[in-house]
Amino acid sequence: MARLEKIGCFGLTEPLVGSGTGGGLTTTAKRDGDTWILNGEKRWIGNATWCDVSIIWARDVADNQVRGFIIENKNTPGFSVDKIEHKIALKVVQNGHITMKDCRVADANRLTGGQGSFRDTARVLRMTRYFVGWEATGCQMGAYENALAYAQNRLQFGKPIGSFQMIQDLIARMLANITACQCMLLRLADLDDEGKMQDYHASLSKAFCTAKMRETVAWARELFGGNGIVVDYNVARFFADSEALYSYEGTFQMQNLIVGKAVTGLSAFV
Amino acid sequence: MARLEKIGCFGLTEPLVGSGTGGGLTTTAKRDGDTWILNGEKRWIGNATWCDVSIIWARDVADNQVRGFIIENKNTPGFSVDKIEHKIALKVVQNGHITMKDCRVADANRLTGGQGSFRDTARVLRMTRYFVGWEATGCQMGAYENALAYAQNRLQFGKPIGSFQMIQDLIARMLANITACQCMLLRLADLDDEGKMQDYHASLSKAFCTAKMRETVAWARELFGGNGIVVDYNVARFFADSEALYSYEGTFQMQNLIVGKAVTGLSAFV
Amino acid sequence: MARLEKIGCFGLTEPLVGSGTGGGLTTTAKRDGDTWILNGEKRWIGNATWCDVSIIWARDVADNQVRGFIIENKNTPGFSVDKIEHKIALKVVQNGHITMKDCRVADANRLTGGQGSFRDTARVLRMTRYFVGWEATGCQMGAYENALAYAQNRLQFGKPIGSFQMIQDLIARMLANITACQCMLLRLADLDDEGKMQDYHASLSKAFCTAKMRETVAWARELFGGNGIVVDYNVARFFADSEALYSYEGTFQMQNLIVGKAVTGLSAFV
Amino acid sequence: MARLEKIGCFGLTEPLVGSGTGGGLTTTAKRDGDTWILNGEKRWIGNATWCDVSIIWARDVADNQVRGFIIENKNTPGFSVDKIEHKIALKVVQNGHITMKDCRVADANRLTGGQGSFRDTARVLRMTRYFVGWEATGCQMGAYENALAYAQNRLQFGKPIGSFQMIQDLIARMLANITACQCMLLRLADLDDEGKMQDYHASLSKAFCTAKMRETVAWARELFGGNGIVVDYNVARFFADSEALYSYEGTFQMQNLIVGKAVTGLSAFV
Repeated sequence: MARLEKIGCFGLTEPLVGSGTGGGLTTTAKRDGDTWILNGEKRWIGNATWCDVSIIWARDVADNQVRGFIIENKNTPGFSVDKIEHKIALKVVQNGHITMKDCRVADANRLTGGQGSFRDTARVLRMTRYFVGWEATGCQMGAYENALAYAQNRLQFGKPIGSFQMIQDLIARMLANITACQCMLLRLADLDDEGKMQDYHASLSKAFCTAKMRETVAWARELFGGNGIVVDYNVARFFADSEALYSYEGTFQMQNLIVGKAVTGLSAFV
Repeated sequence: MARLEKIGCFGLTEPLVGSGTGGGLTTTAKRDGDTWILNGEKRWIGNATWCDVSIIWARDVADNQVRGFIIENKNTPGFSVDKIEHKIALKVVQNGHITMKDCRVADANRLTGGQGSFRDTARVLRMTRYFVGWEATGCQMGAYENALAYAQNRLQFGKPIGSFQMIQDLIARMLANITACQCMLLRLADLDDEGKMQDYHASLSKAFCTAKMRETVAWARELFGGNGIVVDYNVARFFADSEALYSYEGTFQMQNLIVGKAVTGLSAFV
Repeated sequence: MARLEKIGCFGLTEPLVGSGTGGGLTTTAKRDGDTWILNGEKRWIGNATWCDVSIIWARDVADNQVRGFIIENKNTPGFSVDKIEHKIALKVVQNGHITMKDCRVADANRLTGGQGSFRDTARVLRMTRYFVGWEATGCQMGAYENALAYAQNRLQFGKPIGSFQMIQDLIARMLANITACQCMLLRLADLDDEGKMQDYHASLSKAFCTAKMRETVAWARELFGGNGIVVDYNVARFFADSEALYSYEGTFQMQNLIVGKAVTGLSAFV
Repeated sequence: MARLEKIGCFGLTEPLVGSGTGGGLTTTAKRDGDTWILNGEKRWIGNATWCDVSIIWARDVADNQVRGFIIENKNTPGFSVDKIEHKIALKVVQNGHITMKDCRVADANRLTGGQGSFRDTARVLRMTRYFVGWEATGCQMGAYENALAYAQNRLQFGKPIGSFQMIQDLIARMLANITACQCMLLRLADLDDEGKMQDYHASLSKAFCTAKMRETVAWARELFGGNGIVVDYNVARFFADSEALYSYEGTFQMQNLIVGKAVTGLSAFV
């Protein structure tokens, strides 16, 4: 995968296990000599519909530990993927619903790097949450740039709508949100370079940037009036996509509970 | 139309004239003996793609007054309608983009009831804005009912997510918004019955109910996590539809300026 | 008290027990023949500094039930009240910090009407929460009326500031909030007349009206610019007072948990 | 002043001229040989009640240009200062209401550095607006730190309130706001070091940081329940002070119009 010769996907979320991954995966792995037998379902797995290999996280029935396995999507009997249809957001990404029925995987395909355990998923989530911050910033920037241009060109009452106070208010608020997200992530990039980024840093920035994004894209969308609900003006797409960014890689609520635990020293997940 | 034997549509908004209808329509009407010749475009006209007759508002080139005309969609040379594609909201309604090239209408089809002038459109808008309040309330109710049921049934960490404080907070806020909208509109219905509903009443309720709707459907959508972005769970549709309701029949900004003018006695439209 | 010959106060909240009254009062009552001996502290008790009698809620050490007692403030040895100083809000009300050291109360002064138990406090809270809704509405109305007059009279750039879009936006939002609160409470008044008002109705309206009040008074305060921070212009007082209304008779969080429990059937208090 | 031997104040705002300083000061300066005669009033001038010298901005009646003058507070006949009373915010600062009746100032005390004109005030405002961003950040930090400690120590239902989801939600949102403000201002400090900070940078950060501060201190205040309205717990002071910070050195609305003009190229002040 690192040579980009094969495309992979990351199979953690399940139909019935989203926020509560820490509370128990339902996909099981059972050792049988040199192979493992996997059973269960994974949902929302980006790229799963067409990629070559999947990393599947499953609970070892022997010791209840979560282990990761690399599965060849196309050559593994019992492994099937359905494309999730009727999405309103992030249509550019295909998400798969994976079903595994007695899928056999060689023990050699068990992940043993890192700590070879569930804690590795936390390392992955830390990075993906940090990345979603950037996605959310880019999503806002796209909405803002389209909105600014529209405000400068769209005339009502014989004037560009950008010359009205209420429209300038929306534009200034958007730009402030974007600038705040950029500056926060720039600082987090430094922390990451220095090897100091913690889970709660990533959670705080994921929650903040996606929450501000939601405000920004809504203001941009409304600035377009009716034209804001057709995809042709771009802003409708940014508006809709932001809902996926807001929820994936951990909801706003979960991020806040991760931050809350870090600063109070008290856990409130359950 | 009143006998429901023919379906009509209301052609006021134009591609370049939305909020600024008071500042001048670009569609023109020119008298030619017993007929009028109409030229121009109308946009976002609900039902226009398939209905029988259209009410078209146009500016009389002779005296600059706005007049209404009834046009037979299918029998009027020069009259054509394109369906607006790529909508993200309110897909259940077909919106048309009407183009009129030298359309001839008999003078008998000119609207002469009411005041026979542009002021009649204000009467129509007052009622449609009031109705949008109810639509916005119904849209929230749909989102809420789906969200409540999901919260009671969806398990994470072995418990219904509805048993977590942060989810109850969302639910209680949703219900408060809905109750507020219902109570406001109930009172406005009384005012309407008494013949006392004014434009600014309708504007205030349209602005308030659609703004609260936007909050409510966003909370409902996020409560569903990833499942909130597929239409199958309903909430995605309420979420997307609400953007149309928020903007049509006059934007939030325009409603607030109508209210603002009524209470301050000062106009700030331009 | 009903003849208004004596003024009373309602002693439920304690220094260490606010939201968690249901979880246990620390003030104790111990029966001793025909009298009870009360020990403990009560805090935030409105009027306590000067009124004639206090209703004190305490936990019976014998059976852990909460019972109410009427105490004569001035004739009861061991009963003392300190005025709570340094308040920023609702200075018009004096709040007392009551200390009881071996206060003796005749058993005849034990409340036996109602259910003679802690459930009676819920009935009181239902009504006071409903009343706070009205207080919050009145507080907003005061802020709004002052703000509207200021907007019409204060000139900047040679024009009344009420003629600027951004100011009209604030005014229209304020008025919508107020109207929503009025309509909700009007409906609740009907429910109360019909004997149908439940605890969760009062909680929903208390949470909604005080949350909208907080928005409204903040918009009003900012409309006054610098003059909004001196009491002379009235709005500063409404702004500050609203914080007391927002928190007393149960916090926003507690009201939402009461509503949440009612609609989900799931308790999330602890 | 630069040697800190004398303390000064900055007299720009007037009783009737706040946001609209660009539209015309009412304080006048009239040349009379080697001296100038000043008449008018200044309001909200920090330190004015006790400082040594005041910088007064006035409109030259000869050419309508705004000029700055240094006045010795205590030795200038006709110069008087009243302390502004009844403030609810930033009581630590004394604000003066200055009245000037035929105050004579030597021409040597006219400011001639910089551009010797009204544009110099913009340079001052740029820096003070940037500084208010830091003040707003510090104000939030104070509120947050007190709130966090309270959440960890205050018990309800037998547990620290910081262990409840709704409280953790408030805490995480506060911390995200603070972090965003810190990161934005850190970046702005770099721009300032590089000599690249523009007026609209300062305006954007002033608007953003003070708006987030308002959210943060309100969340902190409500976390304290009733104790949040007495100054003894600190948070009430941060809550009240933030209103001064939000409005001074230019309102939220003015900052947004400055940003809006910079990015749209369209002025919407009037």
